[in-house]
Amino acid sequence: MTTEPIIATLGELILRLKPPGKLRLRQTAKFEVCHGGAEANVAGSLAQFGLQSRFISALPASELGEQALMSIRANGVDVRHVARLPGRMGIYFLEDGADVRSGCVIYDRQDTAFCALTPDQVDWDSAFDGATWFHVSGITPAISASARDLCEAGMKEAKARGLHISLDLNHRERLWQYGQRATDVMPGLTAYADTLIAGRGDCRACLGFSPEGDGSTNDWYEALSEDVLHRFPNLTRIAVTIRNSSSAECHKWAAHLRTGSGSYFSKTYHLHNVVDRVGTGDAFAAGLIYGLATEMQDEAALQFGAAANALKHTIAGDTNMVTTNEVKALMDSDGTGRLRR
Amino acid sequence: MTTEPIIATLGELILRLKPPGKLRLRQTAKFEVCHGGAEANVAGSLAQFGLQSRFISALPASELGEQALMSIRANGVDVRHVARLPGRMGIYFLEDGADVRSGCVIYDRQDTAFCALTPDQVDWDSAFDGATWFHVSGITPAISASARDLCEAGMKEAKARGLHISLDLNHRERLWQYGQRATDVMPGLTAYADTLIAGRGDCRACLGFSPEGDGSTNDWYEALSEDVLHRFPNLTRIAVTIRNSSSAECHKWAAHLRTGSGSYFSKTYHLHNVVDRVGTGDAFAAGLIYGLATEMQDEAALQFGAAANALKHTIAGDTNMVTTNEVKALMDSDGTGRLRR
Amino acid sequence: MTTEPIIATLGELILRLKPPGKLRLRQTAKFEVCHGGAEANVAGSLAQFGLQSRFISALPASELGEQALMSIRANGVDVRHVARLPGRMGIYFLEDGADVRSGCVIYDRQDTAFCALTPDQVDWDSAFDGATWFHVSGITPAISASARDLCEAGMKEAKARGLHISLDLNHRERLWQYGQRATDVMPGLTAYADTLIAGRGDCRACLGFSPEGDGSTNDWYEALSEDVLHRFPNLTRIAVTIRNSSSAECHKWAAHLRTGSGSYFSKTYHLHNVVDRVGTGDAFAAGLIYGLATEMQDEAALQFGAAANALKHTIAGDTNMVTTNEVKALMDSDGTGRLRR
Amino acid sequence: MTTEPIIATLGELILRLKPPGKLRLRQTAKFEVCHGGAEANVAGSLAQFGLQSRFISALPASELGEQALMSIRANGVDVRHVARLPGRMGIYFLEDGADVRSGCVIYDRQDTAFCALTPDQVDWDSAFDGATWFHVSGITPAISASARDLCEAGMKEAKARGLHISLDLNHRERLWQYGQRATDVMPGLTAYADTLIAGRGDCRACLGFSPEGDGSTNDWYEALSEDVLHRFPNLTRIAVTIRNSSSAECHKWAAHLRTGSGSYFSKTYHLHNVVDRVGTGDAFAAGLIYGLATEMQDEAALQFGAAANALKHTIAGDTNMVTTNEVKALMDSDGTGRLRR
Amino acid sequence: MTTEPIIATLGELILRLKPPGKLRLRQTAKFEVCHGGAEANVAGSLAQFGLQSRFISALPASELGEQALMSIRANGVDVRHVARLPGRMGIYFLEDGADVRSGCVIYDRQDTAFCALTPDQVDWDSAFDGATWFHVSGITPAISASARDLCEAGMKEAKARGLHISLDLNHRERLWQYGQRATDVMPGLTAYADTLIAGRGDCRACLGFSPEGDGSTNDWYEALSEDVLHRFPNLTRIAVTIRNSSSAECHKWAAHLRTGSGSYFSKTYHLHNVVDRVGTGDAFAAGLIYGLATEMQDEAALQFGAAANALKHTIAGDTNMVTTNEVKALMDSDGTGRLRR
Amino acid sequence: MTTEPIIATLGELILRLKPPGKLRLRQTAKFEVCHGGAEANVAGSLAQFGLQSRFISALPASELGEQALMSIRANGVDVRHVARLPGRMGIYFLEDGADVRSGCVIYDRQDTAFCALTPDQVDWDSAFDGATWFHVSGITPAISASARDLCEAGMKEAKARGLHISLDLNHRERLWQYGQRATDVMPGLTAYADTLIAGRGDCRACLGFSPEGDGSTNDWYEALSEDVLHRFPNLTRIAVTIRNSSSAECHKWAAHLRTGSGSYFSKTYHLHNVVDRVGTGDAFAAGLIYGLATEMQDEAALQFGAAANALKHTIAGDTNMVTTNEVKALMDSDGTGRLRR
Repeated sequence: MTTEPIIATLGELILRLKPPGKLRLRQTAKFEVCHGGAEANVAGSLAQFGLQSRFISALPASELGEQALMSIRANGVDVRHVARLPGRMGIYFLEDGADVRSGCVIYDRQDTAFCALTPDQVDWDSAFDGATWFHVSGITPAISASARDLCEAGMKEAKARGLHISLDLNHRERLWQYGQRATDVMPGLTAYADTLIAGRGDCRACLGFSPEGDGSTNDWYEALSEDVLHRFPNLTRIAVTIRNSSSAECHKWAAHLRTGSGSYFSKTYHLHNVVDRVGTGDAFAAGLIYGLATEMQDEAALQFGAAANALKHTIAGDTNMVTTNEVKALMDSDGTGRLRR
Repeated sequence: MTTEPIIATLGELILRLKPPGKLRLRQTAKFEVCHGGAEANVAGSLAQFGLQSRFISALPASELGEQALMSIRANGVDVRHVARLPGRMGIYFLEDGADVRSGCVIYDRQDTAFCALTPDQVDWDSAFDGATWFHVSGITPAISASARDLCEAGMKEAKARGLHISLDLNHRERLWQYGQRATDVMPGLTAYADTLIAGRGDCRACLGFSPEGDGSTNDWYEALSEDVLHRFPNLTRIAVTIRNSSSAECHKWAAHLRTGSGSYFSKTYHLHNVVDRVGTGDAFAAGLIYGLATEMQDEAALQFGAAANALKHTIAGDTNMVTTNEVKALMDSDGTGRLRR
Repeated sequence: MTTEPIIATLGELILRLKPPGKLRLRQTAKFEVCHGGAEANVAGSLAQFGLQSRFISALPASELGEQALMSIRANGVDVRHVARLPGRMGIYFLEDGADVRSGCVIYDRQDTAFCALTPDQVDWDSAFDGATWFHVSGITPAISASARDLCEAGMKEAKARGLHISLDLNHRERLWQYGQRATDVMPGLTAYADTLIAGRGDCRACLGFSPEGDGSTNDWYEALSEDVLHRFPNLTRIAVTIRNSSSAECHKWAAHLRTGSGSYFSKTYHLHNVVDRVGTGDAFAAGLIYGLATEMQDEAALQFGAAANALKHTIAGDTNMVTTNEVKALMDSDGTGRLRR
Repeated sequence: MTTEPIIATLGELILRLKPPGKLRLRQTAKFEVCHGGAEANVAGSLAQFGLQSRFISALPASELGEQALMSIRANGVDVRHVARLPGRMGIYFLEDGADVRSGCVIYDRQDTAFCALTPDQVDWDSAFDGATWFHVSGITPAISASARDLCEAGMKEAKARGLHISLDLNHRERLWQYGQRATDVMPGLTAYADTLIAGRGDCRACLGFSPEGDGSTNDWYEALSEDVLHRFPNLTRIAVTIRNSSSAECHKWAAHLRTGSGSYFSKTYHLHNVVDRVGTGDAFAAGLIYGLATEMQDEAALQFGAAANALKHTIAGDTNMVTTNEVKALMDSDGTGRLRR
Repeated sequence: MTTEPIIATLGELILRLKPPGKLRLRQTAKFEVCHGGAEANVAGSLAQFGLQSRFISALPASELGEQALMSIRANGVDVRHVARLPGRMGIYFLEDGADVRSGCVIYDRQDTAFCALTPDQVDWDSAFDGATWFHVSGITPAISASARDLCEAGMKEAKARGLHISLDLNHRERLWQYGQRATDVMPGLTAYADTLIAGRGDCRACLGFSPEGDGSTNDWYEALSEDVLHRFPNLTRIAVTIRNSSSAECHKWAAHLRTGSGSYFSKTYHLHNVVDRVGTGDAFAAGLIYGLATEMQDEAALQFGAAANALKHTIAGDTNMVTTNEVKALMDSDGTGRLRR
Repeated sequence: MTTEPIIATLGELILRLKPPGKLRLRQTAKFEVCHGGAEANVAGSLAQFGLQSRFISALPASELGEQALMSIRANGVDVRHVARLPGRMGIYFLEDGADVRSGCVIYDRQDTAFCALTPDQVDWDSAFDGATWFHVSGITPAISASARDLCEAGMKEAKARGLHISLDLNHRERLWQYGQRATDVMPGLTAYADTLIAGRGDCRACLGFSPEGDGSTNDWYEALSEDVLHRFPNLTRIAVTIRNSSSAECHKWAAHLRTGSGSYFSKTYHLHNVVDRVGTGDAFAAGLIYGLATEMQDEAALQFGAAANALKHTIAGDTNMVTTNEVKALMDSDGTGRLRR
């Protein structure tokens, strides 16, 4: 008999402030409010898929913290391990791109309550009770030394309890401001992982290597994944995501998965009217984890993750608000977005 | 001298609730409100074209009924034959699709005031006084047994008074919940019609036949229309609509018309930024009726209907808020949407 | 040592649609969306107070049900005992009053998923596991015969397990449409209760008696409460709410509580800019339950409930989004609404 | 047997642009759109009361004219006598007052399509066919010489056909810009009227006389009304409105009516949360006309008008969107704005 | 001949984020955006009055800084002395109070670009070129040690150039987080000032003394002002503001002014529908400065300031968007907020 | 050493009213407010680029004029030479096109304050003090005879002071209503210019000539520009813009520049999701002027202008809210609109 999968994630949930539509920051008199964060997005998406997911984190003991908590609780995530601490609410400002104009993100995450969270403040026994999977991303160790320590402690504790560990490298150059670079930290964390997820340039930025070239061929991705699995024998699996954009609204997206025994490429999705590009990588991670945790075959899990990612491009906000039925329907269809009535 | 055309339609007007933009139902804190219904949409579009149109229906004797009445009255439709009865306001919830994500409709139309309307509550003499055309659709007989009876009664009364009758099959599988299927009812109603309008799959779903194949060639449509005219000799004309979508926002649309003496295909419109797909079929019906009722040639009427349909894809809400000048301008142009200033 | 209180409530959660601000239904092109229902409001308010609360209910297995579920989950209510069943989503339309103009509610709650919920579909052992208190209101038995049965079954099951039972009579004349009147049903249900809550006219409407007069004196309320406790010896306590309005925005509000040993009147709150009047009774119920369940003295619990009620008048939506600190601060202050900065 | 009353009004319908809520013009990035005009407001209110009303006017032959037409058509007004002419759309900008801050109106009504409408362009036979009452206001003759001529022509045509004529003096000092003052024009028009309506200062401003003093006593109003009826023996009735404000949101309102045989004062309404003050005078006019046209007694008609006026203060927009049942309910109640549910 | 007054202010401009209307932070999906800060508000109000005003400050070199700059530039303030530096954008979250519910402010102003501004980065010669008045408030020295130093440096530089210096004590207990208390710093800064402005409790909190009692009598204020002028002989004038609230929307407001030669109390304004309470003290300061800088008599300047303050209660946002004509009209009127049309 | 460029423009700033999103005028209950005008847009864009720009104009002495002034002042434009005069505020209504549906503009600019501005009311010495460049467009002489005279006077005054003069022909057929045609006026004004900017059809419409053909080849543009330089030897440079649209949202855009010594074509931008097409020509003018005024080479200035134009298509409102860094980044990139984070 299969145990029901329970996935725990650890990371920071931050307030996202975005001008409506395509307005620029300098034009807006309103911000649309939602909340996001790589690992919270994964937990939220998994809960929307119907799995039990838990979020380990800290939020400020203020109304802003309460607002954030309500947001992730609405998604169905178990928030009993979200501490309420002194410190700021992390914020990011998002200006959406439009056609040839690039969007931009302004991070405002210093001195947050999450940075005040120490490993000993987490009740790991309770947080991992019954859990089968632990997911973290390269965002957390990039924020601060304390967050890096917390992330590593979580991976150790999960390892000690036999959970499957997934790590999404998720490189953000501008976040590494506390004196270490990604290549100082991420190889060590990668050594704890079972499943690794990486964007095209993440291995070079975080692990220090990747094949020559620009990632324009399948061969390139296969060479990369082979190299990663070779260098990190603890990994049973690596997924690499492949995005090509021609404008802010037009993207092509696919992913590659390699295990010890196989190498796969997902269907390529052509998206022409992207609603919200943020969180699409997390949507893929959640989809892949869902597939693997519910015992799909590797290739099916990859395809599930890619379809989840494609759908996220159509969902406003950081979290992928879609059901497994919708993901499966897209996998099985021609993706023409017909009206169901 | 030509009589001024007066078109009467019979059907239900319902409240439409839609989250703003591309938000999902589960995300929204607001609904945009409008009103629609296949036959009301046709009446509204005809009124916007400047024709006299009348709507025969019932609405609840509540503020919700009043709100609906104001909506259709604003369009210029004659509402003196809209009864106010006990019963609910019919509702549908619309979640817009986006790119690869399908939109969806949730119908909530049981036990409405319209279902309480019986043929003898309609003053047919007055409703059809001076009228030259009567339009109904397959939505009405799908709602309830009472609505089916009302629809049939209306067709009989119109027939008896020599009105031209158009029927849009407009198949909605999910509406047929009262114990009969479309094929039980629609052939009988089709026998009253002079002009029939059908979507690609409507003839099979409603009348029980259509050519083999998937409707990807003009031949297929010509075979279909020939067969229909053969089986229903009462029909002087059949129009079949042809939609091909590649995403929620990208559609190709054309229509085919066959009469006893000719067979035509409209221009194909390529739409890349669909604003609102709902009601586009009704916009075609209204355009075709406008053309025929104002004595355009068949092919011109078909082209007018197709251009009206194309414009409706750019109009938010159920009803086609465009003028005949705009339709004609599109027919005569290259459809490049230039700014007029 | 005191057991941590766990409160279960049973009832229907419905979709609330309200025009923005003071717009009338016939004027609006938007609806503001929230969710409410007497017992869900109590559960939500208790969760916002930091207590464990559970909601026993059913919602449709549709996107509308999902939307509703997210709403109550956001508040922190345990929703594991909310079934997903076929049937409609219950709706109510709310038009806010303004000054001398009365607001109005249009209920649209027939044939909902909740009406399809039968007592045997609830796992009472699990739903009441560890629970110390069960709350219901007179709304539920007013909806339908099945809802009445469910409510009574819940009370029996709670009684059998030794929970404290509170019943808010909450009379709504327009809901009793299934062939029974409130006086046919409510006395029987009252016989299960330990704590009874009633508005000024509820005892006459639901139980069939009340003192002569119009409720304008404290004596009247004391006579009423004495009579109720006399006639229903199962009751250990009755609270009666006292509202006097001079316009849609100006209300005076207080409450009376009688137990076997004492009779109390709360402070009277004078409200001059009511933001949302709906759910204020539920806010009182939640406040009173909070006080009693956390072992405040009767009079303190009454005052806590009254202050919670006063605050709810300033909160948009059905549920009282305030903390216990805020309630206590109001109890201890002069209620002048100063800016804290 | 009583003839069904049919009321015709003549005037200009203009576009109203207002910043949301209490924002100032210099702050706003949005305008709320509605349409108004003294006589259109009366026609709209009468249609909402269920009477047949007609509007004689002209609008530009542009999309802005169409937008305006839809607005008044939605209310149920017969618009067959609204010409579409060259010329601008009249506009007014409204900045709402707040507490001690005065609101302000910026008129932008030069060279409008309405000013291009000449008496011979109106088909008076058709416009007055079956009509029993004709209503105009002092706004129209204030706009332009052509509008003055049109107004006078309408009164003559109505007189010739035996319609009852009501004239609301409705003085706006800032509108008289074409070389004549109100006292040059209004006495002549008053000589056509049967029923005259005036604000406190209107008789002095338009007719050139009024009692000494500031209108703070009933005696003052009675002296005024007596004098007016004496000087204009054609009048069978005069109503004078009495407003006292203590802030932008707090007003007291009543009205006085004198006929040849009686003198009455309405109930005084105390309003504390005025939603929209514009159009309240028109709401009174419409209410009084409704009462008189449906053969209420004079005093009852006065009370009906006053209650209609009070309700208008709670309705956003220029037109009084209330039913006769609501007016009657307010007349019969204590005006406490209770929620009906 | 009088020199044209030019007023310079120094302080921080921060981003204000507020849920719409009366929504709580935990309920909102939108923030309304504006910018404020005590000294920027004074500069903005003075510019709206038509005076030349300059703002000395620093903003981040990001889109958020640009957005803020556009905001204050729109008001007409000279921003050539606003540096663009590394560091965060200061933020405050505002939850509006409602009736008995208190509003609250969450400050988020650590490590801002303004805190990075050092006295030597300001070109004082240029900033004070032609200036006649320099205004600062107790907010700036409360933010950080660097801001305190900057404030003091500005006062010294202004003193050296013979400018009139006004200081608004503006005490905010929660801002003093860098190790010093207001009483450690403010007496020293007060010694530079010519005009001092204080709220009821500010002298005790900042200067360490005030009369016994609660400020409920004019005598109390006169005793206070006499004591202040006695202890700080450098002061030529002190103004003390007097607010009494009965709810979030109902305030009474007046001010007291004492100079060496006279003692005055302004008219008391009774406000019943406060739109935005934030910045009202700054509006008074700006009004008083306007009056004094344009050589009104002391009492007239006090009355001008009080009327400006009253108007600010009706203006959304931090800055008083009113003209001198409007202030004078209120001073001369009964403040009944009539519609001007 | 290079003088810092200071650019002066002369023209009218008008209020723009646009329904939200793709709504039609006849559907909307809201207008989005911004301000625009060809020369104001150029001044605003230049200020956003960081150059000193001045605007010479007149606005009404009303709140609407104040609102407009705040708008352009926010952008950083020097407004000291904007007079405040009697007269209307100019307005234009904009209905956005969608896909195959054309957008439309309704001008409402008669009798505005700007039309009341006479050359002698401008202090040309002050307005041109230190200025190096003067820009006007063919909009101004099209509005009225007085505006034509003002435009010519400005060109003469600029010429006399040795400023570089640029003229954008900017033909709007519908504006020439005062009795002269563009060809009567524009050749004379062109004779003052140093740099001429023209759309494809502008030379024929304004100057009376252009090559045969439809502008579909580079040769056509080169023939045109050669001819213009030949006929107007005062010109040192002409730029011609090249737009090809396939729908309201899909445009291709490039520009051609010819000087005495060279002929260039910019990169062609393919835009697929145009946000706002209005003001893109002005964005090009501003970009070209920026390049030339800051002493870029001709071809570089052309490319800068073309990239600025491409970015403007992604910016809501009339004015190009982008920085020089963003323009340069687009020039140097592949224009794929990647998210910067």
